[in-house]
Amino acid sequence: MYDEKFLRQAIELAQENVRNGGRPFGAVLVKDGEVIATGVNETNATHDITAHAELLAVRRANEQLQTPFLEGTEMYASGQPCPMCMAAMHSAKVGKIYFAYSYEQGQSYGLSSTDVLDELKKPIGEQVIDIQHKTIDVEEHPYELWADQK
Amino acid sequence: MYDEKFLRQAIELAQENVRNGGRPFGAVLVKDGEVIATGVNETNATHDITAHAELLAVRRANEQLQTPFLEGTEMYASGQPCPMCMAAMHSAKVGKIYFAYSYEQGQSYGLSSTDVLDELKKPIGEQVIDIQHKTIDVEEHPYELWADQK
Repeated sequence: MYDEKFLRQAIELAQENVRNGGRPFGAVLVKDGEVIATGVNETNATHDITAHAELLAVRRANEQLQTPFLEGTEMYASGQPCPMCMAAMHSAKVGKIYFAYSYEQGQSYGLSSTDVLDELKKPIGEQVIDIQHKTIDVEEHPYELWADQK
Repeated sequence: MYDEKFLRQAIELAQENVRNGGRPFGAVLVKDGEVIATGVNETNATHDITAHAELLAVRRANEQLQTPFLEGTEMYASGQPCPMCMAAMHSAKVGKIYFAYSYEQGQSYGLSSTDVLDELKKPIGEQVIDIQHKTIDVEEHPYELWADQK
């Protein structure tokens, strides 16, 4: 259930991160009305392109709860989550997402993820990155190996 | 330029990971004909839903090269990268991607990312996760704060 105080907390994290030299994004992951993990964008500090606020909050919750799956959680994010974070949250089965500033509201600041999302929507042969499916012969198909061991 | 030995290495990493109790995915990131980072899927071992082979290889390359941007690199992945990893590689400006097994080839093993990709293609109001854009009044807009400090 939406509680504005958590979105306010995500925005405060974003503001604090800017004051610390980071990008203006914060995230708060909530379960049963309690904060279980938070994150800010750490890319400037660590060079890690994946160190987005939401992704870090998901990873910290995975570690804390000792499970990849986060059913029943709610992500409060200052900015509309990028496709990388959206895909991670779909895989983690995050229940709800609330965000304060949309891609559109970030556009004039260069803080929008529409470009990446537009790429992902294209067939792989038409994306900016050259992506090629290669055929290779191997003795043990890794998926067969995996299916045998399950 | 495509070199089959790196794709073979990615598949060998995937096979080895299965033998170690992991999922059948490996990745090798190459620059100027040299391997600069590798990864395997570590989700089973660490519970980290984001610990995909390609994402880990990207993060390790970010750390090693001390930059979020990986222009001129080529990712060799045993399986077709999921949308999370694709988005990360777009953001990191990875130059090329070669993969051995497509989503379609992984489908019968439950090793396909078409479900998540299908979600991302939908408008946010129609995705499985309930996603809501909330309006909130704050004194300092974090994007303005960021723009002022750049």
